[in-house]
Amino acid sequence: MRDFAAELEHRKQAGLYRTRRQISGPQQPALVSDGRALLSFCSNDYLGMASRPELSRAAAESMASNGVGGAASHLICGHHDAHHQLEQRLAEFTGRSAALFFSTGYMANMGVISALAGRGDTIFSDRLNHASIIDGCILSRARVRRYPHGDVKALEELLSSTDGHKLVVTDGVFSMDGDVAPLAELARLCRVYDALLVVDDAHGLGVLGPEGRGSVAELGLSETDVPVLIGTLGKAVGTSGAFVAGPRLLIDYLVQKARTYIYTTAMPPAIASATSTSLDLIRREQHRRDHLDGLIAAFRKGASELGYELMPSRTPIQPIMVGDNWTALALSQALEQRGLLVTAIRPPTVPEGEARLRVTLSAAHTQADLRQLLNGLAECRQILDAREKQAV
Amino acid sequence: MRDFAAELEHRKQAGLYRTRRQISGPQQPALVSDGRALLSFCSNDYLGMASRPELSRAAAESMASNGVGGAASHLICGHHDAHHQLEQRLAEFTGRSAALFFSTGYMANMGVISALAGRGDTIFSDRLNHASIIDGCILSRARVRRYPHGDVKALEELLSSTDGHKLVVTDGVFSMDGDVAPLAELARLCRVYDALLVVDDAHGLGVLGPEGRGSVAELGLSETDVPVLIGTLGKAVGTSGAFVAGPRLLIDYLVQKARTYIYTTAMPPAIASATSTSLDLIRREQHRRDHLDGLIAAFRKGASELGYELMPSRTPIQPIMVGDNWTALALSQALEQRGLLVTAIRPPTVPEGEARLRVTLSAAHTQADLRQLLNGLAECRQILDAREKQAV
Repeated sequence: MRDFAAELEHRKQAGLYRTRRQISGPQQPALVSDGRALLSFCSNDYLGMASRPELSRAAAESMASNGVGGAASHLICGHHDAHHQLEQRLAEFTGRSAALFFSTGYMANMGVISALAGRGDTIFSDRLNHASIIDGCILSRARVRRYPHGDVKALEELLSSTDGHKLVVTDGVFSMDGDVAPLAELARLCRVYDALLVVDDAHGLGVLGPEGRGSVAELGLSETDVPVLIGTLGKAVGTSGAFVAGPRLLIDYLVQKARTYIYTTAMPPAIASATSTSLDLIRREQHRRDHLDGLIAAFRKGASELGYELMPSRTPIQPIMVGDNWTALALSQALEQRGLLVTAIRPPTVPEGEARLRVTLSAAHTQADLRQLLNGLAECRQILDAREKQAV
Repeated sequence: MRDFAAELEHRKQAGLYRTRRQISGPQQPALVSDGRALLSFCSNDYLGMASRPELSRAAAESMASNGVGGAASHLICGHHDAHHQLEQRLAEFTGRSAALFFSTGYMANMGVISALAGRGDTIFSDRLNHASIIDGCILSRARVRRYPHGDVKALEELLSSTDGHKLVVTDGVFSMDGDVAPLAELARLCRVYDALLVVDDAHGLGVLGPEGRGSVAELGLSETDVPVLIGTLGKAVGTSGAFVAGPRLLIDYLVQKARTYIYTTAMPPAIASATSTSLDLIRREQHRRDHLDGLIAAFRKGASELGYELMPSRTPIQPIMVGDNWTALALSQALEQRGLLVTAIRPPTVPEGEARLRVTLSAAHTQADLRQLLNGLAECRQILDAREKQAV
């Protein structure tokens, strides 16, 4: 057997050991950790939907009549009215012909990619794609060619020199950087080189585009441009699960072929009901996105003025680049002493030497919350300065 | 791009096209499909827990104070009190030092197997293991050697001729056959050949062993015998999600290494709360298991007397072997006309030529329900006879 203890010790010494913080109560804008309230800038609940009473009520009503568990897979006898209704709403929301509800985004990416590509095919994958996309590529057994982050030119060179069936896969909004993929250019390339385009809009959905319909809708890209659109429901939508949306034929195909859809218990119908409720609210409540955009602009201005290095992001994901693992941890700890929760993100989640603080903003934050964050960042600026001086 | 339409047409002609039945209301013992009530023998809600009001109440209470969505991954800020409490209960329930809560069984198997084995290692996997175990093996990039179903001798030959790190993985109860793996012998072999034993007790948990503690507990196998115990919560437990239980060091290691644990949004805390409630009830209510055992015995007696070919199963999974895809479908349809829902299981879920009806029994069924099933099977016996005559 492998020596697990030695591997753990090695992680600790590299500043890469991860611990779990146990929290109580809702997550936005403040949460309770170790009996202490912390203003949190690290959840993905970008619109503050997760703790909306409308969602809990919808779920509670569903559970009272349908029970909790899905009790069977969708193809046996677990496909509930509530799942069906959610799929219709998701298709409508994304402007697609049909949608399929998955248990998690991880399962959606693995199931969809491995159903659509196989041995002999080639998958082109952005270097910063999410872990679940990377694992979906491995699972498919297709040849995988990773292209430099967002580099359309490099991708074109790869596409033009490859024969056979081709699939291009990208995040819509990158989870640790917050930038948006060059979707219009990717769609054009896929048309020219007859490749199937898969976009995972986990972090764009609810936040970008008209009615929060995502990064793909923001550019007006149709089902022909982006035939395979994946989204997750545990982030801006505030519930749990994921989906893929696209042409009816593709969805029928996935029902037959996506192993992570077929061989798993259906999610609780109550989660589907709460999700439908959330989607209705999200489309209607533009003011939440407007408020969020205001927070994003104010944060970028304030943090830049303090001399922090931001990334080219206009989304709620606003990383502060640090570099060194220990400095990122020190900065995160100093903020926590000031009642602010901002997570340090280290390798392997991000590349070596690119440790960062991942600040996420939410419509649940007030301008006063943001000022508190900026004040904290002002007080902690010296930690970065001291480290930089040490390095010189 | 691949010709998805042609592949679908091919499936239809082979009797392998799958459709989803849309259901309403709870699932056990009867469900509503197309406005018609059907007595269902196909859910995995073996103890009838999914629609227990105690579970919905626990979930509703949690949602009222914590919201619906988990909103972040466990390692960022999504690890809630409710998750922590469930993990403690799961450790206690399984007699293990620690447990880790996963979003689904599929993710547990993929995350655990790919964290514990890698390039250069060898995984030994039972030929009838669940799809998620097979995918976990692929994902690990280890060498995979599949051994004939339940064949301890064949496994020993493989183990004795293999060097390097070894992992043996098996279902506890096989999902499409209902039989129990030879766990004591597997544990012995793993000790002798220094292999790590992983048991997925998805279908044994809640049903077998003292207090429903599963197939591993039934044999009194300790954490040393079975160091990695996986279980799912969407079956007998009646909720959703999954877990792995084992030594503290192993759980710590998985928190660092299991990608499907690290890179996914935490499940709704309410699901964890409902699960804790269910586990308490399951341990206490031995009468449910006793009643279920009575139903299993009565079914086996009745169906055998009708001349149906059963499989060597003492669990709630009681397949009726048919063979041909179209006959299995015809039998399922004839039962449905009589108000009975029993799913036909076809390749690739089972091997070619082994299509079957998968009857599942539940503590939610009454003896009268069972008589109704046996009456239906008596009336449909001629379908099998006719097909068999045709074949001769």
